[in-house]
Amino acid sequence: MALIVQKYGGSSVADAECIERVAWRIAESYTEGHDMVVVLSAQGDTTDDLIAKANEINEKPSKREMDMLLSTGEQMSVALMAMALEKIGLPVVSLTGWQIGMQTDDNYGSAKIKKVTASRIKTELDRRRIVLVAGFQGVNRYDDITTLGRGGSDTTAVAIAANLNADVCQIFTDVDGVYTSDPRKIQGAHKLDEITYDEMLELASLGAQVLHNRAVEMAKLYAVKLEVLSSFEKKSGTEVKEVTKVEQTKISGVAKDADIARIAIVGVKNEPGIAYKIFRLLAREDINVDIILQSIGRGHELSETKDISFTVARADMDRARELLEENKQSLGYSEISVTDKVAKVSIVGAGMMAASGIAATMFEALYEAKVNIAMISTSEIKVSVLVDESEADRAVQAIHAKFF
Amino acid sequence: MALIVQKYGGSSVADAECIERVAWRIAESYTEGHDMVVVLSAQGDTTDDLIAKANEINEKPSKREMDMLLSTGEQMSVALMAMALEKIGLPVVSLTGWQIGMQTDDNYGSAKIKKVTASRIKTELDRRRIVLVAGFQGVNRYDDITTLGRGGSDTTAVAIAANLNADVCQIFTDVDGVYTSDPRKIQGAHKLDEITYDEMLELASLGAQVLHNRAVEMAKLYAVKLEVLSSFEKKSGTEVKEVTKVEQTKISGVAKDADIARIAIVGVKNEPGIAYKIFRLLAREDINVDIILQSIGRGHELSETKDISFTVARADMDRARELLEENKQSLGYSEISVTDKVAKVSIVGAGMMAASGIAATMFEALYEAKVNIAMISTSEIKVSVLVDESEADRAVQAIHAKFF
Repeated sequence: MALIVQKYGGSSVADAECIERVAWRIAESYTEGHDMVVVLSAQGDTTDDLIAKANEINEKPSKREMDMLLSTGEQMSVALMAMALEKIGLPVVSLTGWQIGMQTDDNYGSAKIKKVTASRIKTELDRRRIVLVAGFQGVNRYDDITTLGRGGSDTTAVAIAANLNADVCQIFTDVDGVYTSDPRKIQGAHKLDEITYDEMLELASLGAQVLHNRAVEMAKLYAVKLEVLSSFEKKSGTEVKEVTKVEQTKISGVAKDADIARIAIVGVKNEPGIAYKIFRLLAREDINVDIILQSIGRGHELSETKDISFTVARADMDRARELLEENKQSLGYSEISVTDKVAKVSIVGAGMMAASGIAATMFEALYEAKVNIAMISTSEIKVSVLVDESEADRAVQAIHAKFF
Repeated sequence: MALIVQKYGGSSVADAECIERVAWRIAESYTEGHDMVVVLSAQGDTTDDLIAKANEINEKPSKREMDMLLSTGEQMSVALMAMALEKIGLPVVSLTGWQIGMQTDDNYGSAKIKKVTASRIKTELDRRRIVLVAGFQGVNRYDDITTLGRGGSDTTAVAIAANLNADVCQIFTDVDGVYTSDPRKIQGAHKLDEITYDEMLELASLGAQVLHNRAVEMAKLYAVKLEVLSSFEKKSGTEVKEVTKVEQTKISGVAKDADIARIAIVGVKNEPGIAYKIFRLLAREDINVDIILQSIGRGHELSETKDISFTVARADMDRARELLEENKQSLGYSEISVTDKVAKVSIVGAGMMAASGIAATMFEALYEAKVNIAMISTSEIKVSVLVDESEADRAVQAIHAKFF
């Protein structure tokens, strides 16, 4: 018999009917003899509703009080699910973040997990109870409630699975696994049986938000076997693990990320330290930079100036521009150009770079589809290109058709 | 400068507008230099909505999970109020029951407070923060969330006031004080400036539910000065304390309690121990008995049988009858008669019994109003009569007119 950690997202527990369906699903695993720990998110739109309620009173509430408010959503979910399992007649107990000793840092709104003191969970499992855990929340050293930010419940589930040395951590979502591309948009996109942590990380960071990166990173660090499954249908999903059986040269997915903006700094002095100055400035303000492209100067290596382009999250675009403009003198550039009419299209696959021709095939597909490439970035398991936003879907379709 | 504990009920924080109004009220006391601890109930219908949500899933959920669910209501209230005070620009912190160390027994749904470890509140007050506390909730020895049952937030406020040795505990409600009778029904009913704990206890138990008895009892025990005030209007309310300045013989109120039923056991043997047998039976099943009347037998003292009547809460009526019927043989009576078409009308006043004629005046008023008295019960500070339910309002009106 196994120790299974499951996680169900907000849409899986949206109303009484959904809760009952999930309860029967949990009951099935439990009655097979498994030890069950189940992490739940807030119901459906609860979190959005609570944020709206808060903003009616204060448009800029402190993050501490926002966490106090939002954490009630998951608490409600676990209590209601416990009632559903009680009705089925199974022994169950619901627990909040502080009750399971989910200790985090002080970073309200996007706290990082420091430690899980899962003794309470273990005690309850020893009593053969189903343990329901409120996801997304923890408690800091002041005993104040924190929330883990986006993808927080996934992270809660993985942290508990790691701590308990669970046999598997099953993430139930509204899709039935990880796909080679967005199945709603790309013809021929198909589900993967297996994927490595690294591939999953690249796919997630590229906008395929099945699993949050923090959860995958933690799963990789503690070698937690992850499974992505549908909470609506009963069929096998996608396993995320260290090594997969798939052919090393095969790419595992094509993804699009439209939530980016490109900033080009034109005419900076061609001297050492300039890139350092620019990116330190941005880092200090917590602006993450993704692809960076540095021109080799205007025409020849000995040019006096060069251009530096990079991408940031769309939400950071205006702030990045302001920062650069405020520091125009010390940076010494001639002009800045900014656009959010771009999208990043990427292919991901373990060991992809080792196989020659993968990038070339991608570029060929884009050429055939007449999509212009603005920037290119590569890593061990990924090739990304920046294209015009209006051409992004066509680019994904063309690449997908070429590879799959 | 004083240390003030305030409590606002659900209707006072029902929506964003109400919350803002209360926030300004708290801000006013705070900026006068007072240390402020504010206990809040769940917003308006939140608790009822949560119960409905639970019952949709399970009509008989465990009390433990119900407490887990319901306690989110007060947590939301304090977080939202904190945001409103932040917007005004004041330092504030919201705290849950477990965060303030509100320790209770294990009696989910109607837990009793065992201890308050208010060190967290003190620390926050030392920082000159307004401290918002989620009422109604605590935590038991297993670190599980409990709720305090009806009137729980009042009790939370008094417990904190007692622990911190506060100068006053102000209970804000939707009425502006304690009245001599129900002002919506009784012409001439007027507000009392002062009332003693005991009078308040009698009035509350008689159905004038301004303050819950548990809160008043605790206030009396720890000599916490209570004030009942309106959260909608700014005017003085009613002070509840040990000794009042009011004339000792004056009665402080007339109250009606229609939530009762009368049970008459006819023809029990006139021998010692019979009353003991009956009331032990009821006590074992947690049925509280109020007025008890024992006839002096049928006509003469040496009668072989007598009748015993008593009142119980209306909700207990059927269970009490069943119990008595099941034990008909051992109790040995001839018949039981039960009715819920009765109401209890009472006058309350400290030291009332010392002044002769108070009861007589009450009976005179009832006689003039042609209201028949079914039972009479008296205590040091109270005279109650049982009347036909249909005549109760007329009885209250007549008594009130006679005294005030």
